[in-house]
Amino acid sequence: MGGCGEIGKNMTLFEYGRDAFIIDTGVMFPANDMLGVDYIIPDFRYLVEKKDLIIHGIVYTHGHEDHTGAVAHVIDQLRKVPIYATPLTSALLEVKLRDARLLNETTINTFQPGDTIQVGPFKLESYHVTHSIPDCVGFGIETPHGLIVYSGDYKFDNTPIDGKRTDYAKLAEFSRRGVLMLMGDSTNAERPGWTKSEIVVNEAFDDIFRNAKGRIIVATFASHISRIQQVANLAQRYGRKLAIAGHSMRKNVETALKIGLLNIPDSTIIDLERISGVQPHQIVIMATGSQGEPTAVLGRLATGQHRSLDVMEGDTIVLSSHTIPGNEETVSRTINRLFQRGADVIYDPIADVHVSGHANQEEMRLLMSLTNPKFFMPIHGELRHLKANARLAMQSGIKPENVFVVENGQVIEVDRYGARLTSERVPGGYVFVDGSGVGDVGKAVIRDREILARDGFMMVVINVDGDGRLIGEPEIISRGFIYLKDADQLIDQIRSTVNEVLTSTRQFRNGKRRERMQESLGRMLYNETKRRPMVFSVINER
Amino acid sequence: MGGCGEIGKNMTLFEYGRDAFIIDTGVMFPANDMLGVDYIIPDFRYLVEKKDLIIHGIVYTHGHEDHTGAVAHVIDQLRKVPIYATPLTSALLEVKLRDARLLNETTINTFQPGDTIQVGPFKLESYHVTHSIPDCVGFGIETPHGLIVYSGDYKFDNTPIDGKRTDYAKLAEFSRRGVLMLMGDSTNAERPGWTKSEIVVNEAFDDIFRNAKGRIIVATFASHISRIQQVANLAQRYGRKLAIAGHSMRKNVETALKIGLLNIPDSTIIDLERISGVQPHQIVIMATGSQGEPTAVLGRLATGQHRSLDVMEGDTIVLSSHTIPGNEETVSRTINRLFQRGADVIYDPIADVHVSGHANQEEMRLLMSLTNPKFFMPIHGELRHLKANARLAMQSGIKPENVFVVENGQVIEVDRYGARLTSERVPGGYVFVDGSGVGDVGKAVIRDREILARDGFMMVVINVDGDGRLIGEPEIISRGFIYLKDADQLIDQIRSTVNEVLTSTRQFRNGKRRERMQESLGRMLYNETKRRPMVFSVINER
Repeated sequence: MGGCGEIGKNMTLFEYGRDAFIIDTGVMFPANDMLGVDYIIPDFRYLVEKKDLIIHGIVYTHGHEDHTGAVAHVIDQLRKVPIYATPLTSALLEVKLRDARLLNETTINTFQPGDTIQVGPFKLESYHVTHSIPDCVGFGIETPHGLIVYSGDYKFDNTPIDGKRTDYAKLAEFSRRGVLMLMGDSTNAERPGWTKSEIVVNEAFDDIFRNAKGRIIVATFASHISRIQQVANLAQRYGRKLAIAGHSMRKNVETALKIGLLNIPDSTIIDLERISGVQPHQIVIMATGSQGEPTAVLGRLATGQHRSLDVMEGDTIVLSSHTIPGNEETVSRTINRLFQRGADVIYDPIADVHVSGHANQEEMRLLMSLTNPKFFMPIHGELRHLKANARLAMQSGIKPENVFVVENGQVIEVDRYGARLTSERVPGGYVFVDGSGVGDVGKAVIRDREILARDGFMMVVINVDGDGRLIGEPEIISRGFIYLKDADQLIDQIRSTVNEVLTSTRQFRNGKRRERMQESLGRMLYNETKRRPMVFSVINER
Repeated sequence: MGGCGEIGKNMTLFEYGRDAFIIDTGVMFPANDMLGVDYIIPDFRYLVEKKDLIIHGIVYTHGHEDHTGAVAHVIDQLRKVPIYATPLTSALLEVKLRDARLLNETTINTFQPGDTIQVGPFKLESYHVTHSIPDCVGFGIETPHGLIVYSGDYKFDNTPIDGKRTDYAKLAEFSRRGVLMLMGDSTNAERPGWTKSEIVVNEAFDDIFRNAKGRIIVATFASHISRIQQVANLAQRYGRKLAIAGHSMRKNVETALKIGLLNIPDSTIIDLERISGVQPHQIVIMATGSQGEPTAVLGRLATGQHRSLDVMEGDTIVLSSHTIPGNEETVSRTINRLFQRGADVIYDPIADVHVSGHANQEEMRLLMSLTNPKFFMPIHGELRHLKANARLAMQSGIKPENVFVVENGQVIEVDRYGARLTSERVPGGYVFVDGSGVGDVGKAVIRDREILARDGFMMVVINVDGDGRLIGEPEIISRGFIYLKDADQLIDQIRSTVNEVLTSTRQFRNGKRRERMQESLGRMLYNETKRRPMVFSVINER
C-alpha cells in the first residue's frame, strides 16, 4: 500500500511501506499581512518524527525558489538523504547548500531530462517539460499498483527559445502503458485558452530593440535564464553590450554559463561599472527587482538609490515578469516612479513582454488527454486553483469521485483496489522564517505586530513614593501612535489619567494597579483619538 | 485667464480670476504599507488658505466613495459652500453630511442629468454617462476661452440595465461647438478593447439562478445599485426572496428605493432574520464584503463569524466585483475559505459575474473622436494610467505638446492663446485619516509602524542604586518580536548585556547611559536573531 500527498507549498511525499521519497522542497513568500516574516517553509515535522520511515532521496523538478528554496532547512534535518536533479537545478542547489555549509551533508546526483533514476526501490522516469527555466522535468513514477505521472510546473510551448519541447513521446508512452493517477500543476487553472509561447515575447522585445533610442533596461526574475538568453541574442543582433545588475542574477548567469545552459559571447558582455564608456544606444542592462522589491536594482533605480546606476531621460525600461499576487502595489509604485524619472516604461498589459511559465486551461486539458489517467489530483496552487483544475478534470471525463482536491497534510492512498483520500492527516502546513529564527514567530507574535502596525504603542513609566503617590513626571514613550511632540493636550490628559488612577488605586497590589492603569489609559486614548495603541505601564515604588 | 487641475484623488479645482468651483471630493483607500491608515483625503489646504478665492460650489459627477468620500472634511473647512448633484448622489451626500452633523453647513442643490446648472459665474452643462451607479454625469464647462469637457467616470454601455445610455447627442453637440480641452478618465487606459456591457453580467447571473440548487449569496459593493436591481429582477423571475445583509448596503437600498432609482416589489424583499423559514432554493442574499474585508458580511461568512448567517453545503456564492488593487490577497483568502466551508464559489475569471464601470481603450478613443478636442488632459488614475491615456490621445492625432500629463497640485492654464502647464504648484496630495485624527499621522509615524510591524519592540526597565548598580531583575516588555516565554537563553543574554553596560557606563549621564544600553541590546539581539526590534530602556535611579 502506498500513499502520497503535499506536505507544504511544492513539497510532495511518496510512501510505500516504510520506503519513501520527496519531490521538491519549496518556499512560499509571505502575504502582506504576515508581518515581518521573511519566507515560509513547509512543515516537514512528519519526516523527522516518523523514525521508521526510510527516505531514499529528494528529487527535484526544476530550479525555481518555490521548488528548491527550503533545501537547506530540509537537509539540515534529514542529513545524508541524497538529492537527484538535472544539471542546472543541481548547480543552483549546490550554491544554496554551500551557502548554508551543508554541502557535505548530502550527495547531489545529476541526471539528464529523459533519464530514468532509481531512488531506493522507486523507479522514476523523468521527461522534459517547457516552463520558464531550462532543465525542467516531470516524472512517471512506477508503483506496484500502477503508474503515477507528476507534472511539476509545465506549459506546452511549441516554440521555446532553446528549441526543447515538452517530451510528448514519453507522455504518449505513459498513456499506452496506462496511467493510474495524474498529479497536475494548478497555478493557471482559472485562465482560459493556451499560454502564449516565449516566441511572442521575442517579437515584443524585437520591437523594443528596434525602436529604443537610448539604453534598454530589462528587469526579470534572477533565475529567468531563458529570458536572459533572449535578451543576449537581441543584444548581439542590434549591436548592444549586455551588463548584468544585481548580485543574485550575476551569480545565476555565472552558473548557467559554466554548465553551458547560457550562451553569450564574451564580446557581448560588459561590466556594469564600465558602461559609462559606451553610448546609451549600445547598452542593454538586465536587472533584478521586477517585483518592486525596494532593495533590488529596479527598486533602487526608481528611488534614485542605486550605487552606480541612474535612470536617464531616454531610457526604455521593461518589466519582463508576472507580478506575484500581493506585490501589485509595489510594482505599480515602481512603474510610476520610473515614469517620474523620465523613462519610458513598458510592462505586461502595454506589450507582450512576459508570458506565464504555467499551462492554461487548454494545456491542462491536453495533458489529461495525453495521459488519460483514471485518478486525478490537482497540485500546486491555492484551494481555488485546485478546485478550478478539478472542474476541468471532471469536464474531461474523469469521474468526480476519482478527483482528489486535498489540502496540505492530507494523504491519498493507492492500492490494488484504486486510490482514495484517507482520514490520516500528517502534520503539514507552514513554518514562518524570520531572520535566523525558524518557527519561533507564531500567530501570537504576528497578531501583536498587526496591532502595532495599526496603532503603535504607548508606555508610561511612573515613579511613586511609599504611599503610592506620583514622584516627578510620568515618562511617556510611544511609537507608531501619534507624533507626541505636537500633542500637548493629549499629554496633559495622560498625566491627569495617571494621577486619577494612582489616587483611586492606592490600596491595590502593584500588578492589579498596573492593569487598571493600562485599562484607563487605553480607554481615554480611544475616546480622544479613536485608536487603540497597545498600552503598557511600569509603576516603580521607591 | 483660468486654471484647472486635480488637487488630490478625484478632486478638481477650476479657477477664473477670483472665482472658482470644485468637481468631486474623493477619498483614496490606503496601500497595504500605509499601516493603520483608515483612508486618505485630498490635501485641500490651498482652498482654505487662499482667502481671496471665491468658491461658488462643489459639483458632483456621481455617488461613489472615491468621488464623494471627503465631503464632510471639505464642508467642515469650507462652510456654506453649496453642493450640486443629481438625485441619487444628493441623497448619498446627505447621509454623509447628516452623520457628520454638517447638514446645516451647506445647501444641496439637486439637478437632473442633462440639466444646465449655474455655479456662480460658471455654466455647467451636465450630460448622462453610463458607469456602475445610476445618475452619473459628465460636464461641458463653458469658459471665455472655449469649452472644456470633463468626463467623470464613464463607459459606453449600449445595453445598460436601466436602459439609460451615455448622452451621445450632447457630446456631438459639444463637438459641433468646438471643444478646447477634454479631461478624460484614465482608470482602464491599459486595457485594450471595449468594456463588456452589464448585459453580459445578466447572462452569467441567469445561468447561476437557473442552475443553483441551494441558496445564492451575491457579494458586491454596497453602492452598486444597478447590480442590486439586476439580482432583484432575477429573484422575481426565479421565485426567490431577496434579503440584504450588511448595514451600508441596507442603507443605500433604502435611499435608492425612496427616490425611485431602485424598483423591487415589497413581496420580493425579506428580512435577513426571517430567511430560516424559507427553503434554500427560494432565497438570494445580497451582501457586502466583496473586497475580502474581514468585518463585512462575506468576510464573516468565510470565517464563520456572522451573527445570523452561516455558509451551508450547497450554497452558491458569487463575488460580483472587481478586486481593488492591494486587496488581491484578502479576496483570494476569502474565496479559499468559502470553498473550505463547502460552498461553490463563482468569481470573475470563472464566469462573467462582473464588468468594469470604466471605459477601456476603444471607448477612450471613441470619446476623443466624439469630442475632437484641441487639448487633452488625462485625469483619474496613477501616473502609469495617465501616461497610457496620453499615448492613446497622441495616437488619436492630438499633438504631443497639447497633451498634459500632470501630477496632483499642478495647474493647467487656459487663455485665449491656448492651454499650457504652468510652473505654479499648489499644495496637493494626500492627507492620512486614522481614527478621528486628520493629518496627525505623518511619515515618521508610518515609518515607526513599519519597523514595529516587521520586528516589534523590546523595552527593558532597570532599577539602579546610587552607585549605578542593578537592583533586582530588569523588567522586560516585548511585543511582536519573539515569544519571550520560550526564549530563556535570550533573556539570560539580555540580563548579562544589561549588567555589562551598567558596569562600563557607571560614569555616564543617564541619557547617555540609556543610549548606550539601547545600542548594545539592539546589537546583541540582531546578532542572536537577525532581527531589529525597536529597543527602549528606562533606567531608574533610586
